[in-house]
Amino acid sequence: MSSTSSRRLNITNINPRVKAAKYAVRGELAIKSELYRAKIARGDTDLPFEHVISANIGNPQQLDQKPITFFRQVLSLLENPKLLEHENILLEQLGYKSDVIARAKWLLSKVGSVGAYSASNGVPAIRQSVADFLERRDGFPAHEGDIYLTTGASTGVNILLHIICAGPDSGILIPIPQYPLYTASLSVLDAKAVPYYLNEHHNWGTSLEEIKSAHQKAKDQGVDVRAIVIINPGNPTGASLPEEDIRSVIEFARQESLVIMADEVYQTNVFVGKFHSFKQVLRKMQAEAPGKYDLVELASLHSVSKGMVGECGHRGAYFELVGFDPEVQAEIYKFVSITLCAPVIGQCLVELMVNPPKEGEPSYPLYRQEYDGIYNGLRERAEALHKAFDQMEGVECADPQGAMYLFPTIRLPPGATKEAAKEGRTPDEFYCMKMLEATGVCVVPGHGFGQKEGTLHFRTTFLPPGTEWVGSIINFHKKFMEEYR
Amino acid sequence: MSSTSSRRLNITNINPRVKAAKYAVRGELAIKSELYRAKIARGDTDLPFEHVISANIGNPQQLDQKPITFFRQVLSLLENPKLLEHENILLEQLGYKSDVIARAKWLLSKVGSVGAYSASNGVPAIRQSVADFLERRDGFPAHEGDIYLTTGASTGVNILLHIICAGPDSGILIPIPQYPLYTASLSVLDAKAVPYYLNEHHNWGTSLEEIKSAHQKAKDQGVDVRAIVIINPGNPTGASLPEEDIRSVIEFARQESLVIMADEVYQTNVFVGKFHSFKQVLRKMQAEAPGKYDLVELASLHSVSKGMVGECGHRGAYFELVGFDPEVQAEIYKFVSITLCAPVIGQCLVELMVNPPKEGEPSYPLYRQEYDGIYNGLRERAEALHKAFDQMEGVECADPQGAMYLFPTIRLPPGATKEAAKEGRTPDEFYCMKMLEATGVCVVPGHGFGQKEGTLHFRTTFLPPGTEWVGSIINFHKKFMEEYR
Repeated sequence: MSSTSSRRLNITNINPRVKAAKYAVRGELAIKSELYRAKIARGDTDLPFEHVISANIGNPQQLDQKPITFFRQVLSLLENPKLLEHENILLEQLGYKSDVIARAKWLLSKVGSVGAYSASNGVPAIRQSVADFLERRDGFPAHEGDIYLTTGASTGVNILLHIICAGPDSGILIPIPQYPLYTASLSVLDAKAVPYYLNEHHNWGTSLEEIKSAHQKAKDQGVDVRAIVIINPGNPTGASLPEEDIRSVIEFARQESLVIMADEVYQTNVFVGKFHSFKQVLRKMQAEAPGKYDLVELASLHSVSKGMVGECGHRGAYFELVGFDPEVQAEIYKFVSITLCAPVIGQCLVELMVNPPKEGEPSYPLYRQEYDGIYNGLRERAEALHKAFDQMEGVECADPQGAMYLFPTIRLPPGATKEAAKEGRTPDEFYCMKMLEATGVCVVPGHGFGQKEGTLHFRTTFLPPGTEWVGSIINFHKKFMEEYR
Repeated sequence: MSSTSSRRLNITNINPRVKAAKYAVRGELAIKSELYRAKIARGDTDLPFEHVISANIGNPQQLDQKPITFFRQVLSLLENPKLLEHENILLEQLGYKSDVIARAKWLLSKVGSVGAYSASNGVPAIRQSVADFLERRDGFPAHEGDIYLTTGASTGVNILLHIICAGPDSGILIPIPQYPLYTASLSVLDAKAVPYYLNEHHNWGTSLEEIKSAHQKAKDQGVDVRAIVIINPGNPTGASLPEEDIRSVIEFARQESLVIMADEVYQTNVFVGKFHSFKQVLRKMQAEAPGKYDLVELASLHSVSKGMVGECGHRGAYFELVGFDPEVQAEIYKFVSITLCAPVIGQCLVELMVNPPKEGEPSYPLYRQEYDGIYNGLRERAEALHKAFDQMEGVECADPQGAMYLFPTIRLPPGATKEAAKEGRTPDEFYCMKMLEATGVCVVPGHGFGQKEGTLHFRTTFLPPGTEWVGSIINFHKKFMEEYR
């Protein structure tokens, strides 16, 4: 076969916006970790570790989190409705409860077959179920016509950015550090990410001063700033925002006429305080000052991938629009139609997530036990990992508050910086690569999310079970610091 | 709430490329048909029909096509692996065969949990299974590294167009009539659709003369034509291309250095002759003239949505790349990583589709029976519908060859054209709207796919069971012609 340049498509002429996009969560380190995993699976014993630990990505069920029984029992019946002809066997011999069967029948009556396309914005009855959940959660009405079921929240973000961004001058305020989906999608769309720094010294909260100055700077450069992204609870930071922070963001969005995109996929992963939804806070502000906040436009996203559900592989998610123009919503509907609909089994899982077994129902006790077990396990692991970071020289880490991540600061010796430069790497990437090579633990360097000039971090999930891997990080770090001191 | 113009996002300032995109398959007619369906569901008896027939979209399981038992039994075990603790009950009481259980265990051993994210390009073992299928189908090697599992073929097309199109000057040759995914995606990407007409008088085959003249015209206008799309079997036309047509397209692509995008999602829906894959024909041409075709770049797409599988709602699909530059493939990998991975249950269904029960295996007899039943049913319905069109004044329709559609020409009386113009509609749209209002049958006007100036068509699937709906079209057509003569 011949060289690159003689092909029609080569690295010099493909879409430059795709080429410019960066997505470190599944970059070089992740690919290398998969090679290690394959090596170990082949029986190779050359490596200084026995397992690869993928702490680079919030993928609970890859890290042995068990799915919630109720959810999967219902899904199995949706996939094979013929099982419903054998209710007695299901109930008496296979551990299914009557509410599992009732839910499966109800969903089938609404969906038809899970093998059929649904409406482009999702099955109407499931959107209604999401709206009912939002009413219960927030204490304010929600409408099924404002709910859009999507193929994971990533696709939801992509849809919203596609509508909001109108050209290279369009800008979106993005927190730094951020989940790189945002900057990558904006790169592909040829729109501008307008970065604003989160405040590491206040548990990675939002700083209105930072937002204001980033916004002003962008406007001064001719950027048409159209929206602000908030990730709450934070990814990669794990921060959980207090209500005051949310209020000040909404007030600022009103003043500057910015659409709010609230990425709330970690809304049940909160260890400190309480999750406040943007929708609820906005509705409260609207009630307190009638008329004043009527024009605020909010899109909020949620997903089955995180929380205690952890069903990433099912790609189920939704977003809710608040205060959007009906003509704009019609364009969103048309846009989502082009790729037909989100996977219907994933849509059904969204329904199960927002409408789980209730107290008194047959599946409730096991559901409660599984849910609490996962919640407490995550909390304990977050605290154990945080404690480990506390012992490590040059490492500082905010208290775990939520989400699935810790994002410690690391201060590396000058020798490491020099050695990294020789390899053409940033110091944090160099550090993470050495960690992977020594321990099999894969984490993501801070520069993949953005970090303040002169600071270094890495992001790790606290999903992997056990404490052995934490011990191996401590040992690696000690050796690393000694080697490059 | 206030008017449009005072909102941050309104119809005048959202992404103009999204606004310009057209996707008639789920447009006004489809939305109206859903309103009728909801009306009937509420018990309303005002309408002149008792059912809505969605012949606008190839959605087999919405139209009562039953899923194939083997597929759904395996999927039910993947969703609830705890069922595997009760093999005796599955085998003796629930109709599962041993090969169902074996396949589910094998898939689980490769996938882990279907609730976990997979590799961005799909589960490696499933990609290998697809490669094995392609080797069997074509008689030439295929490699798992060249397979990408996607969220339906629509997403696959979207990924490929994102890589190929580098800006507003990039052009892609698109057949007319076409499935509107292509023009809609190009509109969103701000690239150019370069239309070439299919030859209605030769059963909607490709005409090299048409392709050449469209290509030349675009080049003369400064368009950087980069690829040619072929839909085979055709959508909306139902055409199945002979090998000569495919050879001449490959030869032209070589001469003009065009990437070939072969949309082959209807590859098993062939009633006349035999399906020829672009990959096989390319490999044959490469063997016949060593060296000459080495630089031809081909992307071919397939899906679980069509064929006898008909599992649209599961959003499972793949594409294979042939002759692509490795650096370009690395960019595709990065790009697909941004939205993480295709739904894992859909990926598993791809595996089942490409590796169904074989003769001698326990599930084979039922699989064969179900598969043949669906195939023969589609063929019979296609022929019945074609016969009906034959009786209708001013309607002409090519013989049904494949896919799930017929695309008849209609010649409407001048009165209809005038009346349509009064309503601001094209005559074919006016006709289809009247058909929906009179019969509840929803079809798509030809202009949604593109048609030669001065011709009118509509696309209908032949999926709906029974003949009553066909009779109602005949009656409607007679009355329509009388009314507007």
